[in-house]
Amino acid sequence: MTKKIQAGIIGGAGYTGGETLRLLLRHPNVEVTFVQSRSQAGKPVASIHTDLMGELDIRFTDSLEQKVDVVFLCLGHGESKNFLSEHSFDANTRIIDLGNDFRLNNSISDRTFIYGLPEWQREKIRHAQNIANPGCFATAIQLGLLPLAAHGLLGEVYTTGITGATGAGQKLQDTTQFNWRSNNISAYKTLTHQHLGEINQTLQVLQPGFRGRLNFVPWRGDFTRGIFVTSVVDTNLDLASIINMYRSFYQTHPFTHLSDTMIDLKQVVNTNKCVIHLEQVDHKLAIHSSIDNLLKGASGQAVQNMNLMFGLPETSGLLLKASTF
Amino acid sequence: MTKKIQAGIIGGAGYTGGETLRLLLRHPNVEVTFVQSRSQAGKPVASIHTDLMGELDIRFTDSLEQKVDVVFLCLGHGESKNFLSEHSFDANTRIIDLGNDFRLNNSISDRTFIYGLPEWQREKIRHAQNIANPGCFATAIQLGLLPLAAHGLLGEVYTTGITGATGAGQKLQDTTQFNWRSNNISAYKTLTHQHLGEINQTLQVLQPGFRGRLNFVPWRGDFTRGIFVTSVVDTNLDLASIINMYRSFYQTHPFTHLSDTMIDLKQVVNTNKCVIHLEQVDHKLAIHSSIDNLLKGASGQAVQNMNLMFGLPETSGLLLKASTF
Amino acid sequence: MTKKIQAGIIGGAGYTGGETLRLLLRHPNVEVTFVQSRSQAGKPVASIHTDLMGELDIRFTDSLEQKVDVVFLCLGHGESKNFLSEHSFDANTRIIDLGNDFRLNNSISDRTFIYGLPEWQREKIRHAQNIANPGCFATAIQLGLLPLAAHGLLGEVYTTGITGATGAGQKLQDTTQFNWRSNNISAYKTLTHQHLGEINQTLQVLQPGFRGRLNFVPWRGDFTRGIFVTSVVDTNLDLASIINMYRSFYQTHPFTHLSDTMIDLKQVVNTNKCVIHLEQVDHKLAIHSSIDNLLKGASGQAVQNMNLMFGLPETSGLLLKASTF
Amino acid sequence: MTKKIQAGIIGGAGYTGGETLRLLLRHPNVEVTFVQSRSQAGKPVASIHTDLMGELDIRFTDSLEQKVDVVFLCLGHGESKNFLSEHSFDANTRIIDLGNDFRLNNSISDRTFIYGLPEWQREKIRHAQNIANPGCFATAIQLGLLPLAAHGLLGEVYTTGITGATGAGQKLQDTTQFNWRSNNISAYKTLTHQHLGEINQTLQVLQPGFRGRLNFVPWRGDFTRGIFVTSVVDTNLDLASIINMYRSFYQTHPFTHLSDTMIDLKQVVNTNKCVIHLEQVDHKLAIHSSIDNLLKGASGQAVQNMNLMFGLPETSGLLLKASTF
Repeated sequence: MTKKIQAGIIGGAGYTGGETLRLLLRHPNVEVTFVQSRSQAGKPVASIHTDLMGELDIRFTDSLEQKVDVVFLCLGHGESKNFLSEHSFDANTRIIDLGNDFRLNNSISDRTFIYGLPEWQREKIRHAQNIANPGCFATAIQLGLLPLAAHGLLGEVYTTGITGATGAGQKLQDTTQFNWRSNNISAYKTLTHQHLGEINQTLQVLQPGFRGRLNFVPWRGDFTRGIFVTSVVDTNLDLASIINMYRSFYQTHPFTHLSDTMIDLKQVVNTNKCVIHLEQVDHKLAIHSSIDNLLKGASGQAVQNMNLMFGLPETSGLLLKASTF
Repeated sequence: MTKKIQAGIIGGAGYTGGETLRLLLRHPNVEVTFVQSRSQAGKPVASIHTDLMGELDIRFTDSLEQKVDVVFLCLGHGESKNFLSEHSFDANTRIIDLGNDFRLNNSISDRTFIYGLPEWQREKIRHAQNIANPGCFATAIQLGLLPLAAHGLLGEVYTTGITGATGAGQKLQDTTQFNWRSNNISAYKTLTHQHLGEINQTLQVLQPGFRGRLNFVPWRGDFTRGIFVTSVVDTNLDLASIINMYRSFYQTHPFTHLSDTMIDLKQVVNTNKCVIHLEQVDHKLAIHSSIDNLLKGASGQAVQNMNLMFGLPETSGLLLKASTF
Repeated sequence: MTKKIQAGIIGGAGYTGGETLRLLLRHPNVEVTFVQSRSQAGKPVASIHTDLMGELDIRFTDSLEQKVDVVFLCLGHGESKNFLSEHSFDANTRIIDLGNDFRLNNSISDRTFIYGLPEWQREKIRHAQNIANPGCFATAIQLGLLPLAAHGLLGEVYTTGITGATGAGQKLQDTTQFNWRSNNISAYKTLTHQHLGEINQTLQVLQPGFRGRLNFVPWRGDFTRGIFVTSVVDTNLDLASIINMYRSFYQTHPFTHLSDTMIDLKQVVNTNKCVIHLEQVDHKLAIHSSIDNLLKGASGQAVQNMNLMFGLPETSGLLLKASTF
Repeated sequence: MTKKIQAGIIGGAGYTGGETLRLLLRHPNVEVTFVQSRSQAGKPVASIHTDLMGELDIRFTDSLEQKVDVVFLCLGHGESKNFLSEHSFDANTRIIDLGNDFRLNNSISDRTFIYGLPEWQREKIRHAQNIANPGCFATAIQLGLLPLAAHGLLGEVYTTGITGATGAGQKLQDTTQFNWRSNNISAYKTLTHQHLGEINQTLQVLQPGFRGRLNFVPWRGDFTRGIFVTSVVDTNLDLASIINMYRSFYQTHPFTHLSDTMIDLKQVVNTNKCVIHLEQVDHKLAIHSSIDNLLKGASGQAVQNMNLMFGLPETSGLLLKASTF
């Protein structure tokens, strides 16, 4: 049996850290070497991620091992850069950053980060040393638009997306308090969401003259996991042609599926999938897409990227049982 | 003390019938004369609307009294026309139809229906004999757009709206089953929702040359009550001017409020209010609006219309305690 | 028209303060003179209780008026005693404390507090100057047991109760975070809940030799409002006799209703009602009872007590429209 | 590589059928040979279990293969007996019935069923030809009581349990409609739940003189998955001794864990685990236990039993990633 990949997790007490750990623990080719957490150092990991009771005995640490094969940075947005300024890893260690620090400005000292959206640039990811893992809304929106942009067909886009409360992270705050959030909907960062930058960056590479505007209205949903997005664009093509274009684009990608019937958010919760459904009325095309914000929108995609970087099957450790209900 | 308005409810066992009853029972100027239900005739009303336990002793009936002052038709969409073909009321009886039967084709035999959106045409409602009560999404969307249309400023509109499960009515169906609906989001009737007709009808009266298109994507939400809508339109005005326009438009309307801060759906649940919040980025204006689909979007607006028709204060019986949490 | 009751609210920014305000604003005989909040002083009340938008212009204050007719203390448990040590009101001012400070040790300086459970001691409340308003679980449990205790029939009691997240107050904490609380159940304060003291105090007055033990397991529910309780006791009576006993006990009490069919929690949400249902199997009697923890379990019962103290109809301002769905 | 176990699923379109399929698809030693459904025969399996999109191409069938190694009966309660009267399988085929047909009356023609609770009788299960898989509430309650009964220490038990809506099955009904079930709690089958029979059967074998009574109040919860149970019993032992007894009893059982801290329902959702927490006050012991009703309470335990019957590691295919949030 080949040697397992030695993996470390930085920021292991948060949501994406916990999800990354849950995935790696069950990954057939990975051994978790350490789980770092500044706030929880010394405590048993299963005392924070209580679903892991009975599965592991390790404790959070704040001392790192620099020689691991791969490190997952699961820190708050903006903290990865600071962390890498203060800590260094072996030159051979691969780094996957789940924060937004290196998605646009993609380098620090001698490390350059590749934007880790496999459906866009799988080959680059296979050869990458460092990955900037995409944002959750950015993943759901881009997967809905990539085939159109790849064919230079994208004009102005109107997108509304709704996200579960885990998207807001673990810190106690008014907008994730149960009494406010339950049975409630609200908008935030209207037309100014921070993922617009990375989405536009991708679209402009795929469709070089892209001057369209992405008008994105994010909503807060009253559920914990998942993202559902609908984008409306103008089109002159017939629906059958567009569907063929999408099928062709995604046919070798194991996690992104085009559905003939309407999709719903829970279809993909606790999986690494993205499901897409297309509808057309007159010259308007509506593109619905849905992912689990913590998996395909964060930790699952990070492990998918790891699989690609280490030459493993893309789906290793990611064929998860959906919770469905 | 003046004589109370004698009111009858047709279709009293359903959601809007029940809400209308709850409102009328507490209305200082109304006496409920009968509550009709074909399916539940003979049963105590409080055995179906169990929250009314201890408040009333009456039973559902299927025999009508033709001389009541006002009748509320709380039937499924398409059933009001049939009902009025088979039953007649005294010529003086006012009829308020909560279905969609008379919103576009507004007459049957010698009765003509006025579209009952007070914020648009309150004076006409005051003198109406029959009211076609607006749809729930139609109310939330129109209240977000009326001031722009009244000033002839409306171009193409991109709207996403989310509705609670009570919007789908009481009949058992897959999309309102708990195990599917909870923690889930999906789209339906994309760009083809049946309320587009009544919305366009209003907008074209207000802004005669209106050739804009309303691109509306409805979503099913995982909550029971409420509608939240965001519309995005182009604008050349500055935000302060638009806010003034909205404030001026709604200043005499007691239920529609412009908020300086972001609104949320639960603010208006179990009230007859509509709250609106405006945001601008570059030349894009985002209009958020929210109502309770069963109250301002149905039974509450019906009672508001009744108040206007009978010369009562517009808010009579409608200053409800919000449930809030 | 008679002069309105002048009312002040202390701790008006919290949940029970807000609910008390919502009730008093719509109460036909009350005028809210001031709404005190130390943390929010100076801010518009409607900026915190956003459902009140358009209904009132007042701001939170931290200066009190000592000559109001009635003051509602809506502070955290343990804070009322401190507050009254530091502030005094006119000797004629009635005080209703929603905290637990005076339920067992019922006096401070020259004020003595009557335990404000109208179904137990309505006449004492009518003549009280100060009221210790019962706890939420204590209300639901006692209303399920009072008739048995009044007949000296109560033995050991096994009770499980579940409460909405508003019962935990407004402070941000792990157990009211959305991502933890939603779709979750857990137990807390097993067999040691702080309401046991006031329940036992009542039962021992009603059934002087009561040496039975109340084994109470409280659960946290994944909803915002409401309490549902089931108590199981031994009995030698037949069910019909017990039902008669309960009906007779509650027949003059306008908010507590015995149901012939199974009750459910949402029946009473956003109302001041308590519903009770009895079942018997062999010699075991199961007593189900349900209330809204913020209304019959707090602010609603406080206003009910105020009505009694001021000689108003017991239901004034409390015939609320249920939210039901 | 050894030959995979050939498995068939009867009633594959329902909740437990779907969960069994989800588990078997990912099980390293199993090949799903057919998925039977009378109502959905001919339709793609992924059109009903839409989370499986992209994972399998098979269709529901109504023709069976009699020579499979194991058949899972995932039918409604009472239907397994009829099914086996009308269909026969090869004498070597093992049958695991998820219904309640053979838990008490444990045989049909020449097949005898062993009650499949591994924590009670793992050795018998290893050698069984047919398994009567325990009920969901029965599993959660028994796992809380087994160690006490095994030591002959069980007296009268007072248990309250709450279950998710998937426990009620897939058929549309009033109590699983979203508008009723959400944010609601109610009781059903008070003191008469059908699982009492199988629980008492187990307890009486373990503690032969057991004449205690199990007073069980089941509640309907407003979530989809999971069961949380608290049982209260008298005890003369100290808590430390009881904890030792439980630890010792469960130490070789991989899915049942004793927690030092309070448990919560979501800890085990989408896993095959049972977590237990013990508390003592005076002479009362409270035992909290929680499982996922569809996994440890149904399909997961069925696969666990299959593992035992076929000599596989007990946890094969059952180390699932929890959904947690």
